[in-house]
Amino acid sequence: MATFRVVLVEPQNEGNVGAVARVMKNFGVEDLVLVKPCPLGPEARKRAMHGASILEKSTSVADLNEAVQGVDLIVGTSGVETSSEKKFARIAISPTDLETRTAATGGLVALVFGREDFGLLAEDVERCDVLVTIPASAEYPILNISHAAAIVLYELSRGRSPHRSRRHASGLEKERLHRAFADLLAATDYPAHKRARTSIMFRRLLGRAVPTPWEFHALMGVLQRATKRIARLERGR
Amino acid sequence: MATFRVVLVEPQNEGNVGAVARVMKNFGVEDLVLVKPCPLGPEARKRAMHGASILEKSTSVADLNEAVQGVDLIVGTSGVETSSEKKFARIAISPTDLETRTAATGGLVALVFGREDFGLLAEDVERCDVLVTIPASAEYPILNISHAAAIVLYELSRGRSPHRSRRHASGLEKERLHRAFADLLAATDYPAHKRARTSIMFRRLLGRAVPTPWEFHALMGVLQRATKRIARLERGR
Repeated sequence: MATFRVVLVEPQNEGNVGAVARVMKNFGVEDLVLVKPCPLGPEARKRAMHGASILEKSTSVADLNEAVQGVDLIVGTSGVETSSEKKFARIAISPTDLETRTAATGGLVALVFGREDFGLLAEDVERCDVLVTIPASAEYPILNISHAAAIVLYELSRGRSPHRSRRHASGLEKERLHRAFADLLAATDYPAHKRARTSIMFRRLLGRAVPTPWEFHALMGVLQRATKRIARLERGR
Repeated sequence: MATFRVVLVEPQNEGNVGAVARVMKNFGVEDLVLVKPCPLGPEARKRAMHGASILEKSTSVADLNEAVQGVDLIVGTSGVETSSEKKFARIAISPTDLETRTAATGGLVALVFGREDFGLLAEDVERCDVLVTIPASAEYPILNISHAAAIVLYELSRGRSPHRSRRHASGLEKERLHRAFADLLAATDYPAHKRARTSIMFRRLLGRAVPTPWEFHALMGVLQRATKRIARLERGR
């Protein structure tokens, strides 16, 4: 499992640096290295919110080479994707492809984000092992640097934390609900030739919704209540 | 193929509104509705960059109901995922799941983001068909609102590469089904104090399942049939 470092090259806007620190904290990445950053003041701390500790621990260095010492894979980010094969250095993969690649590997991976105005310069790009571009509107593909960081960190974090699973209703619970649905169809003299089809519709619908046990019980309660009410009224006729 | 609207509920920080407009432009989503926003000044325009046109075209409304008029699927976003099944209204799906669901459907989908400090209030959440949570660090899961928008729009933009769409039920059809469900609860003397909760459970379940018009009609038929049968038997007593 890879470990990640975020490298910002010559950030010009302290608010952006703070925003990047915040989203790093959101995705559990703590290692921030700044190459010749602008001064960081109250605006950076304000935007960092609970990521302020990441700002404080961050290190400032003089160039990209220094920022990627000890790094196993250097990933550049770029808002401009080229379609020219000649500009091989600018051919990029998607954040999803990056996740696939880093999920399987260990080591330290640096995610390098360029200047707000010019992005990564050619010499920075050449230093990178791989380039990532976020697929965006052709009309305006340039994302704010902290938005780009948010999307890349979000993608990479999928590989690390299996989504906490909430309990789903068991097969047995489901069968009881489907029984309750069938009972209601019967109680209402639902046309016999349509019953199978309607039951399958209900099963499919719930299959897509993936209800919790509580939802199953609440829904079953409603159906059983209607069936019982009808049965009681019919007995009383 | 779904069309998207972004709804910000009572945004407090004009910079955030601008940042959201920018990332909307990045992902080709133009429809922004603001519920009781803070005043938007130069900071909003500065952060919007090329998304300034989206800010200018945005509309401000008095409440969430007004913001989602004509919307077919209302998607709330929440930074807090519950593990308690009883808090059914807070059970959320991931942005990836949302993409899967909206890719197959048409119609207008509202993506609703809450206040910077409190998120969506309970009454806003109850109005939503489905809730989305971005899986993040348990230590600090609260993303900046524009980062959350960036990630959700990024995920949804994947689906907009041509996909064949099956028609899903419209907002109007859904309201008729929810009415039919409420009528059945009333016909069976369902305990008054549990009705709201059970209705929301049903809304959420269907929001996750994204039924087709045929499924809606079949399900509505079953519910209405039971309600009518009970009414007829009661009259005959």
